[in-house]
Amino acid sequence: MTLSTLAAALIAGLLSALTALPAAAQFQKPEDAVKYRKAAFTVMATHFGRIGAMVQGRVPYDATAATANAEVVADMALLPYAGFVEGTAGTEKGSPKASIWTERAKFDEGAKKLQDETIKLVAAAKSNNLDQLKAAFGNTAASCKACHDNYRNP
Amino acid sequence: MTLSTLAAALIAGLLSALTALPAAAQFQKPEDAVKYRKAAFTVMATHFGRIGAMVQGRVPYDATAATANAEVVADMALLPYAGFVEGTAGTEKGSPKASIWTERAKFDEGAKKLQDETIKLVAAAKSNNLDQLKAAFGNTAASCKACHDNYRNP
Repeated sequence: MTLSTLAAALIAGLLSALTALPAAAQFQKPEDAVKYRKAAFTVMATHFGRIGAMVQGRVPYDATAATANAEVVADMALLPYAGFVEGTAGTEKGSPKASIWTERAKFDEGAKKLQDETIKLVAAAKSNNLDQLKAAFGNTAASCKACHDNYRNP
Repeated sequence: MTLSTLAAALIAGLLSALTALPAAAQFQKPEDAVKYRKAAFTVMATHFGRIGAMVQGRVPYDATAATANAEVVADMALLPYAGFVEGTAGTEKGSPKASIWTERAKFDEGAKKLQDETIKLVAAAKSNNLDQLKAAFGNTAASCKACHDNYRNP
């Protein structure tokens, strides 16, 4: 790396940091954020469910399909949390509890836990070993459930 | 590749082909397919819109953010078409026309066109050249519009 490319990289990094927007600013309206996060969870749940069907023996195990599904799950796991913008708590069944915003660091830790488990899920899906996939599926499901138990209205 | 690994690969490929399911079989109910395809389009539109904001100068151009958004767009472009299962045409504004299922090959070509444009969008986003991004954004938007004009009830 020459000095000029180093300087360019530093400037690009600085500009990137300066132009990084808080999550809320990425959505025009809170409703857009809610719709977006629900959509990301819907896509994630659909593909996670397809792995579940293999893990539970309802459809034949297929490492290629399991990997494709796991990759969508891992990609989706990165997205919905930006949609939890202030002012979008609820009280009805399935809506997020206000405690997300009073203990946001703990909530974000839970999100990180899911993201980490989904990376392991991809690796397990690629392993062509159904027992490994079952274990990773269980761990991923547990990380879903932990946040649902804590932060989703029953 | 030894003969035994070749045999294993052939068997795996055969099993994979045998267990490939038609799109409809991936969803328990037609409503699940509709919810899924709408969710994938919502995620895609959100991230495509963020590139649009840069292209239109509403937010500063940032190649890193543009690339991250373009990658989500390209990933999402692969998903919704499996959700267009038989029996899910509508007549209300925004719903799919029945012609999708009478000219499915043409519809699938439109989907492929979008997928191809989103791959170019990722490359353009990475180029760090706003003019290239503008061109790729326009081509991607045109491929969205082509299908909307043909297959979405106005």
